[in-house]
Amino acid sequence: MGRSAKGRQRQRDVVAAALRLVARGGIPAASVRGVAAEAGMSVGAVRHFFPTQEQLLEQVMADVTAEAAHRLVPLIRALGDATTAAEGRDAACALLEELLPLDERRRVEWFLWSAVAHSATHPAGLDRWREAGWAGVRHQCRRVVGHLNDRAVPIVEADTMDVHDVVDSTATIPELEDPALEARVTALHAALDGLAAQLTATPAPIDGASARHALRELVGIL
Amino acid sequence: MGRSAKGRQRQRDVVAAALRLVARGGIPAASVRGVAAEAGMSVGAVRHFFPTQEQLLEQVMADVTAEAAHRLVPLIRALGDATTAAEGRDAACALLEELLPLDERRRVEWFLWSAVAHSATHPAGLDRWREAGWAGVRHQCRRVVGHLNDRAVPIVEADTMDVHDVVDSTATIPELEDPALEARVTALHAALDGLAAQLTATPAPIDGASARHALRELVGIL
Repeated sequence: MGRSAKGRQRQRDVVAAALRLVARGGIPAASVRGVAAEAGMSVGAVRHFFPTQEQLLEQVMADVTAEAAHRLVPLIRALGDATTAAEGRDAACALLEELLPLDERRRVEWFLWSAVAHSATHPAGLDRWREAGWAGVRHQCRRVVGHLNDRAVPIVEADTMDVHDVVDSTATIPELEDPALEARVTALHAALDGLAAQLTATPAPIDGASARHALRELVGIL
Repeated sequence: MGRSAKGRQRQRDVVAAALRLVARGGIPAASVRGVAAEAGMSVGAVRHFFPTQEQLLEQVMADVTAEAAHRLVPLIRALGDATTAAEGRDAACALLEELLPLDERRRVEWFLWSAVAHSATHPAGLDRWREAGWAGVRHQCRRVVGHLNDRAVPIVEADTMDVHDVVDSTATIPELEDPALEARVTALHAALDGLAAQLTATPAPIDGASARHALRELVGIL
């Protein structure tokens, strides 16, 4: 591993450490000092990459958003390619399930989004990412409700998959013209948030199987 | 006001102070010391009513649960009395809206339930209330889905409206026989939780009108 590859790996280690800390203790747990201890580095080494906690957390949000977008793109394409109603429902469920904390990676992501959404005191630089996360989920819900009701929703092209482009383009996707369908989008988005909260509560009141079953039933009537 | 009426009023003041503190700062904010300061009393006066924080919080949960049950009973009866489909949908919406943080009182209640559900370190005595809160909402969702699909769900009689009886009886209400309808119950419960979270986020991404609209649309397809 060359010098700069090693540097990139160390930077990724810092981001991963910050993500673990936020998942365990919220935004305040991911201080530069705490992240240095978690990553087994000196405070100076962490500050070399991220002079402030805000810059560190912005990088965490950018990486997490990029990874989620990367996972979603093939599922979005599969929904667009679905021709029968049954295929459409299957593809819709696969896309929506990807947004739920059904494995450890998505669980950690969910705690991060939740921390950013509910912490009154997070750094100002995270506002943009909080809004991007919200708009991204909203947009997938709109895509699903649109598809299930024969309204095509445009697909963000793969060659604009730079995370900042995705964030900017997602923010400009218009509402569905029918207010009743937009209300279903709101209901679906809320159901996803509620399933995620119930899956991650301690002790969790629902399990992955019942979350999937509820989502499939909901998709069947949307 | 006699001596014992005054005592009861002071006890209510303590509970109200604890509720405000939980809403602002979670369970840890409602220490006996913090509650005494919030209520403008001595620590000794608070300890006279509630020797421990656990006992204080259990009383808070009991009072909040009793008040919510009191508000819900006429709405539950109205749903049972609805004869046309349109009346049923209206009554269902009224009942479900009562569970959302659409005014200051319900907002404070929601923060309390949320704190108890998501705090990993709350006193053990609150577990029972957390489960009761969960089961109570689940039960109302089951009642609504059952009504909308011509399955009657028994009504807890008003003469058993002691809060402990309500908690015990709610826990024993059976699931709907049709697994697809139970999946709709799960989806509706999740949608309520998600709407509540979105209404109370800072800044709130949705407003009361869009939450009501989404709920009405969802009831229309359940």
